Amino acid sequence: MRRTALAAALAALTLTGGVMAAEKSTGHPGTKPGEMRYMGPPSAMTPKAEEVAKGPTPPPITAAEKQRATQIYFERCAGCHGVLRKGATGKPLTPDITLKRGTEYLKAFINFGSPAGMPNWGTSGDLTEAEVDLMARFLQHEPPQPPEYSLADMKATWKVLVPPEKRPKKQMNNLNLKNLFSVTLRDAGQVALIDGDSKKIVTTIDTGYAVHISRLSASGRYLFVIGRDAKVDMIDLWAKAPTKVAEIKVGMEARSVETSKFKGWEDKYAIAGTYWPPQFVIMDGDTLEPLKIVATRGMTVDTQEYHPEPRVAAIVASHEHPEFIVNVKETGKVLMVNYEDLDNLKITSIDAARFLHDGGWDVTHRYFLTAANKSNKIAVIDSKTDKLVKLIEVGKIPHPGRGANFNDPKYGPVWATSHLGDETIAVIGTDPKGHKQHAWKVVRTLKGQGGGSLFIKTHPKSRHLYVDTALNPDPKISQSVAVFDIRNLDAGFKVLPIAEWAGLGEGPKRVVQPEYNEAGDEVWFSVWNGKTEESAIVVLDDKTLKLKKVIKDKRLVTPTGKFNVYNTMHDIY
Amino acid sequence: MRRTALAAALAALTLTGGVMAAEKSTGHPGTKPGEMRYMGPPSAMTPKAEEVAKGPTPPPITAAEKQRATQIYFERCAGCHGVLRKGATGKPLTPDITLKRGTEYLKAFINFGSPAGMPNWGTSGDLTEAEVDLMARFLQHEPPQPPEYSLADMKATWKVLVPPEKRPKKQMNNLNLKNLFSVTLRDAGQVALIDGDSKKIVTTIDTGYAVHISRLSASGRYLFVIGRDAKVDMIDLWAKAPTKVAEIKVGMEARSVETSKFKGWEDKYAIAGTYWPPQFVIMDGDTLEPLKIVATRGMTVDTQEYHPEPRVAAIVASHEHPEFIVNVKETGKVLMVNYEDLDNLKITSIDAARFLHDGGWDVTHRYFLTAANKSNKIAVIDSKTDKLVKLIEVGKIPHPGRGANFNDPKYGPVWATSHLGDETIAVIGTDPKGHKQHAWKVVRTLKGQGGGSLFIKTHPKSRHLYVDTALNPDPKISQSVAVFDIRNLDAGFKVLPIAEWAGLGEGPKRVVQPEYNEAGDEVWFSVWNGKTEESAIVVLDDKTLKLKKVIKDKRLVTPTGKFNVYNTMHDIY
Repeated sequence: MRRTALAAALAALTLTGGVMAAEKSTGHPGTKPGEMRYMGPPSAMTPKAEEVAKGPTPPPITAAEKQRATQIYFERCAGCHGVLRKGATGKPLTPDITLKRGTEYLKAFINFGSPAGMPNWGTSGDLTEAEVDLMARFLQHEPPQPPEYSLADMKATWKVLVPPEKRPKKQMNNLNLKNLFSVTLRDAGQVALIDGDSKKIVTTIDTGYAVHISRLSASGRYLFVIGRDAKVDMIDLWAKAPTKVAEIKVGMEARSVETSKFKGWEDKYAIAGTYWPPQFVIMDGDTLEPLKIVATRGMTVDTQEYHPEPRVAAIVASHEHPEFIVNVKETGKVLMVNYEDLDNLKITSIDAARFLHDGGWDVTHRYFLTAANKSNKIAVIDSKTDKLVKLIEVGKIPHPGRGANFNDPKYGPVWATSHLGDETIAVIGTDPKGHKQHAWKVVRTLKGQGGGSLFIKTHPKSRHLYVDTALNPDPKISQSVAVFDIRNLDAGFKVLPIAEWAGLGEGPKRVVQPEYNEAGDEVWFSVWNGKTEESAIVVLDDKTLKLKKVIKDKRLVTPTGKFNVYNTMHDIY
Repeated sequence: MRRTALAAALAALTLTGGVMAAEKSTGHPGTKPGEMRYMGPPSAMTPKAEEVAKGPTPPPITAAEKQRATQIYFERCAGCHGVLRKGATGKPLTPDITLKRGTEYLKAFINFGSPAGMPNWGTSGDLTEAEVDLMARFLQHEPPQPPEYSLADMKATWKVLVPPEKRPKKQMNNLNLKNLFSVTLRDAGQVALIDGDSKKIVTTIDTGYAVHISRLSASGRYLFVIGRDAKVDMIDLWAKAPTKVAEIKVGMEARSVETSKFKGWEDKYAIAGTYWPPQFVIMDGDTLEPLKIVATRGMTVDTQEYHPEPRVAAIVASHEHPEFIVNVKETGKVLMVNYEDLDNLKITSIDAARFLHDGGWDVTHRYFLTAANKSNKIAVIDSKTDKLVKLIEVGKIPHPGRGANFNDPKYGPVWATSHLGDETIAVIGTDPKGHKQHAWKVVRTLKGQGGGSLFIKTHPKSRHLYVDTALNPDPKISQSVAVFDIRNLDAGFKVLPIAEWAGLGEGPKRVVQPEYNEAGDEVWFSVWNGKTEESAIVVLDDKTLKLKKVIKDKRLVTPTGKFNVYNTMHDIY
């Protein structure tokens, strides 16, 4: 249906190209060979703008409209297209491209979306007709350059709410912390802490907007969350009532936070990576005091062109060295950041592939498997040797979250990812010692329900592999999950109608992110509805695949990611 | 005289401030805390330009004028003020500063210079009255952003003139290569190779513009030179007649080239660092094929603010590890770039101080002493531990070149630097084992002839220490050098009237850069005259301090830096 509507709209515009120029481009930013090259000195030091032939002029936009559009762009578009619009998971949207397309074409695209993954912002009701028109005009102007964010900027937002010396020396509450869940309440700007035994909300805590992940300190005492707005909150789970003890805003847009986990360095440092500005900051693990900022701007891995906005995606803490492992998306480099000596900072920059996004450990916690999403690859990093092991071709836009580790009956220890862009699940051998012939190869490709998968999950004590399809355009698929029997993968999957079980009213009711409890005998799913609609968490009995409990609560607004304390602490997935 | 003229000119302008705002600024670029801070999302994602109050508008400038001004700026101004005009050795010159000053004030400054080091471009005759006016207007406009320079851009300029397999296996000429001198002929865009024994020019070779340095490969076979225009030429000294075998342009503006010298890696790699774009490139040591580009844009060492133009200054090759040591000027970081594995590139970033420029080894070749020029500091880097040893306060704008190592009768092994901004020579203890109490301290401050010194030099076989004052405004001082007796430093210096001895006609006749021959019993000085005037090289008998020879030749146009093959190969200075 959507394809047809879009096709008709585009055909009506009688464009010569039929597809956006960006679809044909390599997605490489920066100077092309031969173009705009300085041969100076002296004559070639010509202003760049004057070398570029003048094209069409952008349609008018008022200052107030520009401000509003900048805000919408940040909320809806920047995540995929980048603040500077150089493109990543989404296509580049710089004026050299958008001006040629014109307002009507852009409106159609924003309105109807595209089968390649662009959401239908207009027909979904997310943007009004006037907003679609505004965005189409805005995109033909130069992107406003957001400011930088320095140590002083961070310090101005930094608050120690409870100083370390005033914090308890032991756990002061009766919570079973190991089975506590930190749940993102996306549009509420909060996390809910839910007791995994009673399934009751212990408390909700105000955080940044749309918390992307929760991470535990090595000790399990501190919970760190980071909002899309780059606000980091540090929560002390040992307090009488779990409470925020420190906060800081580390930039304008962010996705990742992590804590030091190497032996001897537990709880010493935290790190947060930002989308804008493109950089990361190492902070004191007790107070979030910002200590060291490192910019990620630099050369792309393949063509070695300068990229102005290489965003920091997933970060994990090494168990082999005192290092953080930092994915830099647009340049395609994995940085092994050694935190032993911040004044003489050692970083190994591993060439992987562009558009690094999320990833997780193999079962031994030596190898980090991470998606280069628009490159359709999984990069395998050896955290012991600090080298790339392999780039593995997988399906379209892998999105593993942290991935899923299990023992394949035929191939031994494997790690799996699902995909945003197709229905496949790539199963990769991860045991170079015991199963050398299968190591770092796709040993199986399973077929799931469809594209739009965000998360895949299993647990060492489980025999099931769950695959969500939260972003699939078909509500039947986005409201259910597929489950595979690991002992019999060839048999295909069963469908569990999770949203139906939740018994909610109207709304998208997307089923997202399976998460196990500590024991590994329950799986929790978010049924993510609109902000003003009722959402729920559905708890499944993993053995029987039967409904165990539906958690409903007025406070449970737009639940998405859930993080079990024990499993997160120990990187069990 | 100059001070008076300038003061009068400025007073006539009846400015409120009296000094440029930049003089009071800390010289820190980027966002100030509290100013232009994004608190987004959502409302704070406001375009930066709209947050800044509108000030005066810049005076008109035509496109042709802008192009001419950009060229003049590159040739005369960018070296000190930076392409983006953020300031370094010179002050920041961005429109937020220059607009407040206005055209007449800027014209006076450009015309008369300033005692703090700004040359008198107008009264010296370097710029015409119309050019001074043009530059004053140009500086009130936003600096044109020069383009980036990618691997493809480099490859488009890369030529292997004689492939490795066609080069001789042994030296095919009868030159005494160890006593050969490579001499920059600045304005000719050439180097002259001069036989140190006969003092005859062997050949001149076309190179980039104003070759900044010559470096030898570890084997001594290849000579690498780099022009200010970032052109690298590789000359094979074993050929029948020394000849260029490869060339490449690595950017728009550059200062540094070096080759790998660690045991087992001799002649394997070359490296060149650029001022613009701010980056360095590692190249194949046989062919100059560009292999790996690394951007240096990032955070300043002190306030941790983003700097868009951290230029690569001096580079030296470590003898302790397979590493290049790269000075990044504006961020104040020394990068230890390990070249063992370019695909998994390890860099240790040592926090030193802003405005790193030139420097050299101590006598053991373990410690790298490098000037943070506008910070008035020498940073000591331990190339064995890859850590900062010490920041040492010295005089105003130290400019050591590579510095001078000698045995101080009282303090043991020392390294010395002269200064651009004052007449002192700082003598620093460098022997933490034998003379621990003096190590990394200024043990003596000698007084030389005056400020404007570029180079200081001695030799293990010499008892003399020479200090040039090439940029001193007093011709008597700029045309002579000071020489100290190392055995009796307290006695002060003698003055040698080098330019007078050269017996040239009119012209500035600046005496620059003492350089020893291989034996260490002769010192060569350039007498650097204007492009259309006669220049010379004066050779001194180091023992007697008497004139030994004046080298004159039509081809010797604007000689500046001289590099003796043996001393350069072995870092003897």
